[in-house]
Amino acid sequence: MSEKIHTFAKFGATEGGGVTRYALSDEDVLARDYFVERMKAIGAVIETDDLANMYATIPGSDPSAKRIVMGSHCDSVRQGGNYDGILGVIGAMEVLETIVAEKIPHKHPLTAMIWTNEEGSLYPPALFGSGIICNDYLPEAIAKNFKYEDKMKSLSILDKTTTFGSKLENFKYKGDKKNRINPDQYKCMFEMHIEQGPILEDAGNELGVVDCVLGMFNYRISFFGQAAHAGTFPMKKRKDALYASALALCWLHEEIDKLGDDELVYTTGEQIVSPGVHTVIPDFVEFSIDVRHEKPEVLKQVLDIVKALPEKEWAGCKCQIKEAWKRDTVYWDKKMIGYVEESVKKLGFKHQYIHSGAGHDAQFASYMVPTTMIFVVSKDGLSHNENEYTSDESCTNTATVMLNAVLKADAAD
Amino acid sequence: MSEKIHTFAKFGATEGGGVTRYALSDEDVLARDYFVERMKAIGAVIETDDLANMYATIPGSDPSAKRIVMGSHCDSVRQGGNYDGILGVIGAMEVLETIVAEKIPHKHPLTAMIWTNEEGSLYPPALFGSGIICNDYLPEAIAKNFKYEDKMKSLSILDKTTTFGSKLENFKYKGDKKNRINPDQYKCMFEMHIEQGPILEDAGNELGVVDCVLGMFNYRISFFGQAAHAGTFPMKKRKDALYASALALCWLHEEIDKLGDDELVYTTGEQIVSPGVHTVIPDFVEFSIDVRHEKPEVLKQVLDIVKALPEKEWAGCKCQIKEAWKRDTVYWDKKMIGYVEESVKKLGFKHQYIHSGAGHDAQFASYMVPTTMIFVVSKDGLSHNENEYTSDESCTNTATVMLNAVLKADAAD
Repeated sequence: MSEKIHTFAKFGATEGGGVTRYALSDEDVLARDYFVERMKAIGAVIETDDLANMYATIPGSDPSAKRIVMGSHCDSVRQGGNYDGILGVIGAMEVLETIVAEKIPHKHPLTAMIWTNEEGSLYPPALFGSGIICNDYLPEAIAKNFKYEDKMKSLSILDKTTTFGSKLENFKYKGDKKNRINPDQYKCMFEMHIEQGPILEDAGNELGVVDCVLGMFNYRISFFGQAAHAGTFPMKKRKDALYASALALCWLHEEIDKLGDDELVYTTGEQIVSPGVHTVIPDFVEFSIDVRHEKPEVLKQVLDIVKALPEKEWAGCKCQIKEAWKRDTVYWDKKMIGYVEESVKKLGFKHQYIHSGAGHDAQFASYMVPTTMIFVVSKDGLSHNENEYTSDESCTNTATVMLNAVLKADAAD
Repeated sequence: MSEKIHTFAKFGATEGGGVTRYALSDEDVLARDYFVERMKAIGAVIETDDLANMYATIPGSDPSAKRIVMGSHCDSVRQGGNYDGILGVIGAMEVLETIVAEKIPHKHPLTAMIWTNEEGSLYPPALFGSGIICNDYLPEAIAKNFKYEDKMKSLSILDKTTTFGSKLENFKYKGDKKNRINPDQYKCMFEMHIEQGPILEDAGNELGVVDCVLGMFNYRISFFGQAAHAGTFPMKKRKDALYASALALCWLHEEIDKLGDDELVYTTGEQIVSPGVHTVIPDFVEFSIDVRHEKPEVLKQVLDIVKALPEKEWAGCKCQIKEAWKRDTVYWDKKMIGYVEESVKKLGFKHQYIHSGAGHDAQFASYMVPTTMIFVVSKDGLSHNENEYTSDESCTNTATVMLNAVLKADAAD
């Protein structure tokens, strides 16, 4: 594990000790080259599909049995860490290497997988590759955001001219559409991942048996004021969209916090201020609100608060709200969760049930094949951060749990 | 007046009925060409200085007398209106044309002037040309922001590579440093301008006898939080810099409003949110606060409130404040104000004393020569807006007041 963790950390290494490894970049190629090299070394067959998702497969004793797949992504955010995504690829490689080295008998072919462009850092949106591959299986409201033709036109956020499609066309690992993961050839999927939050650490646990990805909604909230000169326009006549938005954001916090639900998380991460000039009263402000909870009835309560915004007075400004997207809570397959839980209990690692607050490729894959995830503790809960850290020991323990869970799935039919 | 207003409105005309006429742009050249054409038609001598400030001068009866100058700027903000700045140039042209046409006797040479890059829209900062020209006369705290060498390196906000200096080098109207306005050759300066606020309109007045430009301070207020994943990080552990800033902005409004001073204006026009991703808790937010009032003791009261920010708790985030700049109230020359007031009273237009909340080239010029301004009503108080409007009649009345005031100054010694 340690060798793989440290080797992958070189591909796109940043001064701050993390990585910047955008999908389809030269650094992405280096990571995939290393994946291929190690997987070929244990006799795995390498396949890639038309989205450059990669599959390294070792045979099982039954050539007609469906594949069991483990995997995650190797791309990162800008100045990301050495664990987010790549640890799930490393864990899958570790499981295959161990099975080959130890000659552990298994019936099903076993596959280690890399999903392309999970972060969507350079070519938005996130969950890019899995969104396209699983498109036919997703609820229409989600699927519409991941249409192949549209996504090929996704523009690089850096140069605003390179499309994902044009970059993919010449990418070393672009393969055939026929190689895409599909429910006819694949039996089930495991994804191991760092928690990306502080819950396990705070509880003194090493591993998380993940039961679901939280349901969420994301709204855009806009305020329409009137631009005027900062020096000449009397306070009493102003319609200041930024002050309106500050009042509304404070009110949202106050009202939502009254629900007193410790499981609820909500975030305003983005805010646009127009014209954004220090001498001009802002006439337009828009902010995002991202709300997550397992239970639809709690999300509904928060949504009712959000929906009350336009009915109120905000410093004389008009307020509009608009749904950006939402998803229902995605529950993992109960049998699959059971394999993980039995394995972790047997191995005796300190663990707990946990929800995933973040989205993962596994959630889209779960609409296609039975799927689950395994979380490992993240130091200080940090992620999307160069200081991400999980000890080699915890990473190895998690891979060991995945190995055991895979063997249980393998034996299950 | 009407012909000049409508002709200048063509140079950089926008679909919305306003203008975008950046300093040193092709549209700026067209406006200056028209200025030259009309001023040459009345026999004015055209001079330009090394900042491309332009001077059109008609002689007076005493060749050794100092010049009396009237002027403003012809550049605009993006999607600005047809009156801000250019009306002061038009008014100056109108006065010279009237004096020549009517053969009105006068002792001093009279100059119509265009200041370069008052808005600083493309090449910041505002008051660019006057800041450089008047640099030796300005208080050091202001002068340091307008050093010639520094400003030549000012980058275009559009391409971030073109410098003001490189653009100026090849500009049609770049002239000689010796032509700069200076106290040896110039006796005094008048600037007529739209009010850019609603005070005159609300009071039912057409003209404003301006007595000062308001003192002000501008601070940057920063909040330092901790970035974390929107879906995984519990609310109770968060340090959300955007929520902190919203709380602080609401508190500032509350505390400042307690002063109950109707003359006070304060504005937060700019806000930076980092990293600005809807799924990440912001770890850094900075906003501007621009505060203006005539009286230093009131500004001091507001500054004390701003200075209290870092001592308080803002959603677990650290707060820092930093002065960006400040200026004391600039009072116009009492004699000059008198010439305007006597003229407007004699002509019988409805008028009042008024402060200028906005900055103008005249405020820098006032450190060099006796200076004053005349305001004309702006419909709905709109400015920096395509819908700026002042009737032809009000514009003409204001120019008539300026003509009379200029003749009083001319006769004064």
